[in-house]
Amino acid sequence: MKLKLKTIKGCIVAPTGFLASGVFCDIKKLGTGKGSNKGQKRDLALIVSEAPATVAGMFTTNQVCAAPVKVCMERMKKGTAQVVVVNSGNANACTGKQGMADAREMVSFTEKTLALSAGRGLVGSTGRIGVTMPMDNIRAGILEAAMELGGTAAHADRATEAIMTSDTKPKQVAVEFKLGRHTVRIGGICKGAGMIQPGMSATGARPAALPHGGLHATMLGFITTDVAIDQKVLQAALNEAVAHSFNRITVDGDMSTNDTVLVLANGLAGNEKLTAKNAKLGIFQAALNHVCLELAKMIVRDGEGVHRVVTVRVNGAKTIQDADAAARAVANSALVKTSWHGGDPNWGRIIDAIGYSAATVAEEKIDIGYSAPAKAKVLWSLKHGQPTKATFKQLCIAVAPKEFDLHINLNLGKAKAVMYACDLTEAYVDYNKGDVTDPTTLGG
Amino acid sequence: MKLKLKTIKGCIVAPTGFLASGVFCDIKKLGTGKGSNKGQKRDLALIVSEAPATVAGMFTTNQVCAAPVKVCMERMKKGTAQVVVVNSGNANACTGKQGMADAREMVSFTEKTLALSAGRGLVGSTGRIGVTMPMDNIRAGILEAAMELGGTAAHADRATEAIMTSDTKPKQVAVEFKLGRHTVRIGGICKGAGMIQPGMSATGARPAALPHGGLHATMLGFITTDVAIDQKVLQAALNEAVAHSFNRITVDGDMSTNDTVLVLANGLAGNEKLTAKNAKLGIFQAALNHVCLELAKMIVRDGEGVHRVVTVRVNGAKTIQDADAAARAVANSALVKTSWHGGDPNWGRIIDAIGYSAATVAEEKIDIGYSAPAKAKVLWSLKHGQPTKATFKQLCIAVAPKEFDLHINLNLGKAKAVMYACDLTEAYVDYNKGDVTDPTTLGG
Repeated sequence: MKLKLKTIKGCIVAPTGFLASGVFCDIKKLGTGKGSNKGQKRDLALIVSEAPATVAGMFTTNQVCAAPVKVCMERMKKGTAQVVVVNSGNANACTGKQGMADAREMVSFTEKTLALSAGRGLVGSTGRIGVTMPMDNIRAGILEAAMELGGTAAHADRATEAIMTSDTKPKQVAVEFKLGRHTVRIGGICKGAGMIQPGMSATGARPAALPHGGLHATMLGFITTDVAIDQKVLQAALNEAVAHSFNRITVDGDMSTNDTVLVLANGLAGNEKLTAKNAKLGIFQAALNHVCLELAKMIVRDGEGVHRVVTVRVNGAKTIQDADAAARAVANSALVKTSWHGGDPNWGRIIDAIGYSAATVAEEKIDIGYSAPAKAKVLWSLKHGQPTKATFKQLCIAVAPKEFDLHINLNLGKAKAVMYACDLTEAYVDYNKGDVTDPTTLGG
Repeated sequence: MKLKLKTIKGCIVAPTGFLASGVFCDIKKLGTGKGSNKGQKRDLALIVSEAPATVAGMFTTNQVCAAPVKVCMERMKKGTAQVVVVNSGNANACTGKQGMADAREMVSFTEKTLALSAGRGLVGSTGRIGVTMPMDNIRAGILEAAMELGGTAAHADRATEAIMTSDTKPKQVAVEFKLGRHTVRIGGICKGAGMIQPGMSATGARPAALPHGGLHATMLGFITTDVAIDQKVLQAALNEAVAHSFNRITVDGDMSTNDTVLVLANGLAGNEKLTAKNAKLGIFQAALNHVCLELAKMIVRDGEGVHRVVTVRVNGAKTIQDADAAARAVANSALVKTSWHGGDPNWGRIIDAIGYSAATVAEEKIDIGYSAPAKAKVLWSLKHGQPTKATFKQLCIAVAPKEFDLHINLNLGKAKAVMYACDLTEAYVDYNKGDVTDPTTLGG
């Protein structure tokens, strides 16, 4: 099915009938005054649909799961939502009964403030684990954010800033495409940076071939669209899109307690409601896949201390689980990641990681090579377990760019997997060791 | 069984009838002249028993396994050996048929040089992967090392230096104890530093609850003893000792292609041969456990860039596999390790890692606390998933020392596991990124 995607401005407010806002309410209690915004990064966002929206979500499979994630998973059963309240600076994780009460109050207070019926609110949080929420600041922030709601790109930019933590860049995308005669839009924002190796599912139950170690720093993603779509079909489409995007990235291999992706579809594009049988579903799926993958790649590029982004492409595995295991072992190997940082085409460390992965492999069959991002022309450093004639200098040139693809062929089957990975730098270590004399520097 | 261990000098030559030597033969071909030793670190060692010795070994379970490991595993079937030739500077891994031929020639050339019957030699290698062995230098080194064999501590020191790679300190231990009226000695040396998360077995076959990700830098361990012992009993004793020492350490979570532990028992202590039925076997087992654990801890303390050593003690797991999975997830989490480097008692990152591990856990049951090494008095930061009254300052003091124990109780069962771990520092990254303009800086 041919897809014509047009990239547009406005991210989450690009689709018809969505509003957003972002304010500073001092959630870290830096003491600059509640509600004031004297040069402080915004820390509370609202994303609102003018009409009730069909909703789908994907959530961390970490057994230690934050209160806002639990609240969202409960509310997914309704299948409808109209507002998402999101804060940065506090993850509301490992906060016990108080944390659950606070997460529930965040949504109910938001619903009341916007005069929405109960159950229409969803919530996301990111920040330090184990600190109870400063609810006075949160309530003040929700009131201010409600007053500042708007549908311009500037409003969406403020919401984008409000969900950032160690992110250095805002992460936004929006696309427009045709479903027959109807114009449909999908917009999205996300945040990441550290504690990044999401392994999300719709229920929090862990599917096969998910990392049991991964990145760290929560990832949050919020997607809006004006398409009309059946709820089960929307959830299935999100599962598919996340499986090939957010669940394929790793920064530091630590899976967060808060990873969340939500999509709200308010139907205001006026298209005939998409169902599993609808031939146009493929167009929407392709567009959603594009939005999720673009956002996911932005997370890796802006990962904590990241200098190089490497797409690890494993082919020829016996099973998908094997392909995934080999790709994750390479993508999370401290030695492979430091060699990427050094510009060292160290295939020895790569084949070592493949060898200790859970994947079934045969040393004498393994190929390892490099290409420019998404290019077919591969410079092979290893063929069937043996070094090729490629010189060290040629290989150094192949791994010198800020982004390149690593190609691994196990030559044992037809299964494949991709991981979007990055290097490990002194900057990552320096950032995450923090400064105990200044607890505001201590990340999640 | 009460064990009186006396620590003595001489490491691998402390037991009766062992000789050692270490020379420089320019295996990295730094160009300072074959055989010369102008200020260069020694890179080839011999360890010889005057009498044929019963032998046992443990080897990497990495599916990509170096030629010397394959040669040793073949020769374990004989159950007897008399000499081990070891080199640093080249791992002889991923070197194909040539590598196997080179490893076989290293042992046969050593056997001929020492006028030993064929099949009495074993071999170990560590260094860069994927480079064929400089056999002219190796042969010259073996000839020189054979001439320099001796039974003094100085000879053992030279052998210890010769197996070091990124190690900053030699790693040696020797103990003496009584088996009835006989005095028995066990000595050992090892090397580690990076690519360190060994998962060894006697056959290379991977047992349950082994890392599929771990440390990196080969670990080699060579243990000598004059005890008289049955070969199957010696192998079983080594399995037990390694399971609680070398297989419980991690520096960077990368399992090497070359990890090897060998023990030679020449029987010259004159004790009644130890069998499975022999009541004195427990004494020998306890002594061997002590030697292996002391050596394993030295590897972690001297890991690449390591500033802090943390013993992760998981208790209350449903199964040993769960205890192991939780301990390894915490011990290998980039965020936990950087927080240790920063002196940040960040239990949020610890419980997050426990939560994404393969272990079955319940957030509301998890306890996390700290103590001085091997002390019972624990300062708890978390009880049943909730922060205790311990202050941030108190917790900072608990994680400030160069070495401390991390106590995790899952409160779900009776299974336990220990991991000897370390922090992740800028120095580790800086060392392992190397300098491609000087390939001699590029590690294994």
